[in-house]
Parts: sequence; C-alpha cells; structure tokens
Amino acid sequence: MDFNENNATEAVLNSFARIEDKRLKQIMNSIITHLHQVVKEVEPTEEEWMKAIMFLTKTGQKCDDRRQEFILLSDVLGVSMLLDAINNRKSNEETETTVLGPFHAPSVKINNGDNIAKTVSGENCIVSGKITDVNNQPVSGASIEVWQSGPDGLYDVQKGDDIVDLRATLETLDDGSYMFRTVKPQYYPIPVDGPVGDLLQNLDRHPFRPAHIHFMVKSKGYKDLVTHVFIDGDKYLESDTVFAVKKSLIRKLEHGIDDESKEKCLLLNFDIVMEKE
Amino acid sequence: MDFNENNATEAVLNSFARIEDKRLKQIMNSIITHLHQVVKEVEPTEEEWMKAIMFLTKTGQKCDDRRQEFILLSDVLGVSMLLDAINNRKSNEETETTVLGPFHAPSVKINNGDNIAKTVSGENCIVSGKITDVNNQPVSGASIEVWQSGPDGLYDVQKGDDIVDLRATLETLDDGSYMFRTVKPQYYPIPVDGPVGDLLQNLDRHPFRPAHIHFMVKSKGYKDLVTHVFIDGDKYLESDTVFAVKKSLIRKLEHGIDDESKEKCLLLNFDIVMEKE
Repeated sequence: MDFNENNATEAVLNSFARIEDKRLKQIMNSIITHLHQVVKEVEPTEEEWMKAIMFLTKTGQKCDDRRQEFILLSDVLGVSMLLDAINNRKSNEETETTVLGPFHAPSVKINNGDNIAKTVSGENCIVSGKITDVNNQPVSGASIEVWQSGPDGLYDVQKGDDIVDLRATLETLDDGSYMFRTVKPQYYPIPVDGPVGDLLQNLDRHPFRPAHIHFMVKSKGYKDLVTHVFIDGDKYLESDTVFAVKKSLIRKLEHGIDDESKEKCLLLNFDIVMEKE
Repeated sequence: MDFNENNATEAVLNSFARIEDKRLKQIMNSIITHLHQVVKEVEPTEEEWMKAIMFLTKTGQKCDDRRQEFILLSDVLGVSMLLDAINNRKSNEETETTVLGPFHAPSVKINNGDNIAKTVSGENCIVSGKITDVNNQPVSGASIEVWQSGPDGLYDVQKGDDIVDLRATLETLDDGSYMFRTVKPQYYPIPVDGPVGDLLQNLDRHPFRPAHIHFMVKSKGYKDLVTHVFIDGDKYLESDTVFAVKKSLIRKLEHGIDDESKEKCLLLNFDIVMEKE
C-alpha cells in the first residue's frame, strides 16, 4: 500500500523490524512517533519545513571545538534540565544537581586557597565550604572542579586565547573542607551570535543566566555531582534562560576580610552533601 | 517553584508567553510538548543524550552547497513523505506527488527531443508523455524540470565537477506533449558516507532507492507538481529507503526504435495530470 498520512508512522516503525538492539529500537520508536505527531499537529508548509531544516543545519555548523550550539539549544528548550531531573532523582538529603552547560573544559589543578582568577579582575571573593555525606561525615580527598564566567560575562573558552582562567580542580582536606579565591560571578547572556540567539529573539525571550559558579564533585564510592551555586538577589534567578535555578542552590554573598591580604572581600559559603553510589 | 519532571514542559511553554506570532507559538508548543515526551518516555542517560547531540552536530556539519544531510535524514525517517502527503491532499484525478529529494539543483533549458545525458552513457531511453488538466485538456507551455542519477547511481551534483548532466528544463508543445532523450535510470544508494548512512546501518536498513526520474512541473494557473516516475520491476520498489514510491507512478519500460538514429532504445511513457490552483 502507498505511504500516506494514516500509515506513515507505522511504515517507518516497520522499517525498524531488523534492529536487534532493544534500547535503540525503543528510542527510535519514540522519536519517530512524536516527530510524526508534531508534523501531523502542525501541518508545516514546505517553506516552514525548509526553515526548520536550515535552522538545524546552521546549529550544527556553528559547533566547533569551543562551541556546542546543540547543547545550548537543548539548554534553552528545558531539555537539559529535564534530563538532569530524570537522571538525578533525589532519594536523600544530598545536594541538588543542575545542568553541566556548554562551557565545561579541561581544568588545571590548584591547592586550597589559590586564586583561580588569573587574568581577569573584579570584586575579590572567597568561596569555601565543606563536603559531607548524608550522615554529616566529611568526604576528604574529593575532587572539586569549578568554573565560572568573569565580570565581562565570558568564560575563558569563549575568548579564543587558550588561557585557562576562572577554572580549576582542587581537593577537599581531611575535614572535608575546601576554599579558593576568585572574583564575584556576574549574570551573563548565553552566546547569542548563533541560531540559538536568533531563536530566543524570535521567541521574545531574554538570553540571561543569573550569576553562578559551576561545581563538578567526584569522590570514590559517591555519585558524581554536577551543580551550580547561585548568588542570592540576582535579577535573573526567576527567569534563567536555561531553567537551571533551584532554590536550595542559592547562597548569600557576605562581606568579610581576606586573612591573607587583610583586605575587604566577599565571602560565599557552599556546603555540599554527596550521596553514596 | 523549582523546575522538575512534572512541571518542566509547562515551564518551557510559559517562557513562550510573549510570542506574538500565533503560528510560531503553535509550532513551538507542539515541538516542546513532544520533545519532552520523548525524553520522559525514553529517559536517556547523559551518554545517550550526548550521542544524540553529536549525531545532530555531525549532520549539520556534513551539509554544504552540494549536500543537505538534514533533508536526507528527514527523507529516511519518512518525515518528508508525510509532509508531502499533508501538503498535497488529492482532490481529483491529478498525478500523485512524491518527495523533492536532496538533489534538486539549477537546471539548463533544452528543446523537446534533446538528450539530457551529456557525459554519461548507458542504455538509451526516450521519455515522453502528455500533460493535461483533469478534464483531459492539454496544458501547453508547461515547464517540466527533470533530473535523475546515471548508471553509476550518482547525480551530477555529487561529482563535484560543476558539469550539469542528466538535468534539464523543457516545455510542453501545443498539444501538451513533451519528449526528451536520456539513459535508463538505475536504482542507487542514497549517500552513506555521513551520519545518515551510519544511522541506516545501525537500524539495519538498506540505503537503496528504486530507479526513477524526478519531475517538477509548473504552469500558470496550476498547482506546482513535484513527483517521480518509477520503473516497473525494480527490486527496491517495495522498500524505497525514503518511502516515496506510489503505485500510480510506476511505468513499464518498453522496447522500441529511436526515429532519429534508427537504433534500438527503451521507451518510457509518463502522462501527467495537473490540478488547477
């Protein structure tokens, strides 16, 4: 029988008959069923379909070693956060997770107390906290990878100069504590010079993310934790363009004195609770 | 409230509140609803999601002036044919439509009777027919664009030498008839040296399309018609990898004599019925 509106989905699902990998078959079945349903609901014109084809094409072509426009697309459509929710269902009192984002990159090792701001300047800030398990026991020797944008709103990898900045890996001490120096993070727009930026404009959505520092914490025997700490009072906490804010991850910046330089600085405390594997 | 599995779709749909273009809003609502449903049904791991991200990225990066890998993807997933069905609901006895395909390209004008095979050789074939309206009245002066692959299974644009071959535009005569010389089309694989080829392999599907010649017919006052003529007996008529075969478009090759050269040749008759706008 000829392929038509009524048998189209079935015809394509039938073409998957020889797939042996059950998981792949399940994924393809779900994608085809919903993709066809979108086409049936929306009834795109050939012109609209070509616009979609060109949008996806440009999104792929915007990607390179430093830029992942499809992850950005997944982020602004709430897909990354949905995936995060599904893959990190909370069972205990462990710290909540949030998106990895497109700016994770190779890091450099530092010692506790080091300053991760190498070339940028801004308001000095000391970030510290303690990593414990759900029974409040310290997790020593845990690896903490942190990365953030500078006061200009840019991550190092967006600058194209190969300098690793505002990005480092350190280890918790015996009592589970950690500390590093940096500059105060700022809210910033996601990169808008590509198809995702054009899309946000067409959707009449702003491109901003509230100020945050990314954390990826790993320790043997514990579940890897990917999260952010957000800064209380930021104007974009309620409308993060990638939907990644969770109230439990917001912390107040306090005013204090840096013990070493004896100068005024900001203090940000972020304790983390890890879950056993 | 925090973004979670239950409110995720609603949160993203709410972010579309300021879209003024109702059509855009309808399209985005449908895409987000079904995209999120796929994620909820499948529950992809972060690894699986990254595979999908990289597949889409590579598909975009495979595209250039001569290659449209996302159209190819749309074709092998039955989306192009579904779109064709929706946009060309038959109301009368007009010729059925089928996919445009990724190999449409600028053409050259020829006269009736000319040979469109410039550099390739194969079994000589005369293609002819008559274009009429649904009341069997001839449509004279209609523009007929034709394109096909050669005996090697390749279209001119796949060869990278800028030679226009097996591709031309001619006009119907006063009685609605047309005729051109060419070589017999062959079944061929769609391009498999990209992400779509890898996908077909993973899905254990062959990449072949049955032999055909593309037609795009236009005449003032009539609906543009995009279709193929398929060759009866081809081994891939039942399993075209882009789902484009319709029984009403299959024609038998007959044996005959070319009036001009007095040599044996194949004859392919394809009458076309156009619908008024």
